[in-house]
Amino acid sequence: MLKKVLVANRGEIALRIIRACRELGVASVAVYSEADVDSMHVQLADEAVCIGPGPSKDSYLKPDRIIAAAEITEADAIHPGYGFLSENARFVEICESCDIKFIGPSADTIRIMGDKNTARATALANGVPVTPGSEGILESAQHGLEVAKEIGFPVMIKATAGGGGRGMRPVMEESQFIDMYNQASQEAIACFGNGDCYIEKLVLNPHHVEFQVIADTKGNFIHLGERDCSMQRRNQKIIEECPSPLVSPELRERMGEASVNLIKAIGYENAGTIEYLVDENGKDFYFMEMNTRIQVEHPVTEEVMGCELIKEQIRVAAGEPLSDHVLKAEPRGWSIECRINAEDPYNNFAPSPGKIDLWYAPGGKGVRVDTHVYSGYSVPPHYDSMIAKLICTGATREIAIARMNRALTEFMIRGIKTTIPFQIEIINHEDFKTGHYNIGWVGEYLKQKQEEAK
Amino acid sequence: MLKKVLVANRGEIALRIIRACRELGVASVAVYSEADVDSMHVQLADEAVCIGPGPSKDSYLKPDRIIAAAEITEADAIHPGYGFLSENARFVEICESCDIKFIGPSADTIRIMGDKNTARATALANGVPVTPGSEGILESAQHGLEVAKEIGFPVMIKATAGGGGRGMRPVMEESQFIDMYNQASQEAIACFGNGDCYIEKLVLNPHHVEFQVIADTKGNFIHLGERDCSMQRRNQKIIEECPSPLVSPELRERMGEASVNLIKAIGYENAGTIEYLVDENGKDFYFMEMNTRIQVEHPVTEEVMGCELIKEQIRVAAGEPLSDHVLKAEPRGWSIECRINAEDPYNNFAPSPGKIDLWYAPGGKGVRVDTHVYSGYSVPPHYDSMIAKLICTGATREIAIARMNRALTEFMIRGIKTTIPFQIEIINHEDFKTGHYNIGWVGEYLKQKQEEAK
Repeated sequence: MLKKVLVANRGEIALRIIRACRELGVASVAVYSEADVDSMHVQLADEAVCIGPGPSKDSYLKPDRIIAAAEITEADAIHPGYGFLSENARFVEICESCDIKFIGPSADTIRIMGDKNTARATALANGVPVTPGSEGILESAQHGLEVAKEIGFPVMIKATAGGGGRGMRPVMEESQFIDMYNQASQEAIACFGNGDCYIEKLVLNPHHVEFQVIADTKGNFIHLGERDCSMQRRNQKIIEECPSPLVSPELRERMGEASVNLIKAIGYENAGTIEYLVDENGKDFYFMEMNTRIQVEHPVTEEVMGCELIKEQIRVAAGEPLSDHVLKAEPRGWSIECRINAEDPYNNFAPSPGKIDLWYAPGGKGVRVDTHVYSGYSVPPHYDSMIAKLICTGATREIAIARMNRALTEFMIRGIKTTIPFQIEIINHEDFKTGHYNIGWVGEYLKQKQEEAK
Repeated sequence: MLKKVLVANRGEIALRIIRACRELGVASVAVYSEADVDSMHVQLADEAVCIGPGPSKDSYLKPDRIIAAAEITEADAIHPGYGFLSENARFVEICESCDIKFIGPSADTIRIMGDKNTARATALANGVPVTPGSEGILESAQHGLEVAKEIGFPVMIKATAGGGGRGMRPVMEESQFIDMYNQASQEAIACFGNGDCYIEKLVLNPHHVEFQVIADTKGNFIHLGERDCSMQRRNQKIIEECPSPLVSPELRERMGEASVNLIKAIGYENAGTIEYLVDENGKDFYFMEMNTRIQVEHPVTEEVMGCELIKEQIRVAAGEPLSDHVLKAEPRGWSIECRINAEDPYNNFAPSPGKIDLWYAPGGKGVRVDTHVYSGYSVPPHYDSMIAKLICTGATREIAIARMNRALTEFMIRGIKTTIPFQIEIINHEDFKTGHYNIGWVGEYLKQKQEEAK
């Protein structure tokens, strides 16, 4: 087993990893920026090293400082969490060159899957359905238009380096194409330094359904079911659930098989997530991308499958096989997660950093709270606005929803604004209760509310 | 379904019931003593009624005040929780006469099972093994001695009205018998106003294993597996687990069948627990008593069986059948509970009421905290010293233990003493890790520590 793991992240995921280490008897090292000195992940780790000022680019995104912290503390592995350096192939190579185990797949795998276009080609080559689209990068706006006409409108233009909704443009008809292409490409240059784009057929009203996969180095390649993450605002997930209300057992089998085939074909190691679009009838699915790391929403899978992904990641990195109970895992019940963000949902989701005067989190049966905050903690302005994940699980979807409503209303947070009131609205909406929502639902709902308010 | 439930209890169990009501869409009424005005159960209920001064006998034990509170708020049912009026047959009759549904079994059932001697005779009559003992109440000390000689020493003298270890005396040899009988009987008169005693063969080094049972009014009588509650100090449970490390599948089947037969025979309604002694080899079991109410330690069963006992209690009381997922429940994983008491484990477990300056409860995967306290709350001196239940669940016993250790060490409580340091000792003890402990273990361990300290 590994002896000491450095956690190259912050917030709730850092705490999540530290807790998994503690339970495995593995020592943990927290790294933190000057803005995060009061975060609970710093307090609960066995050791903690300050790696720079508040802004991520000066701390959590600095490979050299993180490697130095690992060397000083003699950590033999690094868990990257999500975001930051978790999908940075170069960082993986640096770890390897320093004889530090990176808890995740190889640099090569990250490169293949990190480039959306190569990932798509790899999926296609291995029999995983992809939306019809350009095979390869578009040479120009004009080339794109020709391909789009072949596929048929509507289409989606996507920057190959894009993410978080940036570098993406939907095009409903021919006349808009050139303009939209230029917008997407320029945004991608500004955000990612790479303006290369490709196009895909636009699937109307789709669900975002993703499969949790995990593989060890002993020949086990498995999936642990799907999550539905269609409840998104501007491509940012707000509520996730496991399983998906749209996915039938038959579709689950097909998607699961495709997912396992893909990770076998690329010799994948460790945990990953394959994201698909599923058409509104729950019949066809299309590969979108693969995230070669743990996801924010992994707990809903853990709750339903009765397993622990972070621990399995550490086991796999240490060369051990997946746990027996994971290889035999069967789903039980239903789990829903709300990402609690420090944002004002009634002021266009403006960030709301600052001091939390009172923090009372819900508890009791079926309620899991993953958070690094507490009464008196100040939310720094530098990072992602997520301050907690509330995960509610029950024997049925109806029970999980009732529990989420109970837990959200029980939450008391004073001093900052949070997304909780908005999530209470969604959880109690008939469309959510009946599972009739897709990735455009939140946008439509907000537009409608805005119009009603006029 | 019921419309409004009055919760005739306090502390974590009151909150537990209020949360279940909320999730079922049933309104809840809290009752509280003047000492409990700041308890979280008062804050989270839909309505709250003060029923008198701090001491239980002036508030939570006053049937008339509780009935009045139910009538004022138009509650159609009362959930008694555990302790207080939960096994008071007369209170059940008062509820019935006021047309308020008591959430539990009938007054007659409570009477039969509440009297240890009748309960024992009922078990015996229905083929449930009991320890050899006096059939009926002993007429005198001399009569007892004769019966004890027939059964063979060691024996246990038990007051028929006893509980919580009071009115009980073990007798290792003949010469001690008369003296011990008089002690037990006098203690029972002082505590319960009834000095009647019976005797039983004393099973050496036994485990306390109890079966969770539940029955609806539609003909479903089921058990939901066992709990091991052998980790006791002076007959007070400290740590409980589900399943029992001692119980084999074969023994579980036999005990489960006996338990279901018993509740069928007496036409039991609602949730209950049948307590057994199991000999140290895990071969024989003996009926001890039946608790005709929910138990403190019910959450470990909930976690492993994937069900919710309080909700099922409410359903049954409303005349509904047990939920489908409960009827089909299968065990998954292992769950352990620590009762966190406001006591000083290094000063003979002296109560430690007072203000909690800081309360930081552990969280994350597999950790459930049921509590009515929070930072700034003052633990009143009037009640049971339990301030929280920490329930840790994992795929295996080893994982559950590692998690409990992690969660106990993560707990931060300042201002009062708690049993947490003592529970950390036990959890990390080789005997606990290997499951080699019995109902005498804690006593022996404390004695040994005391001797070592000399």
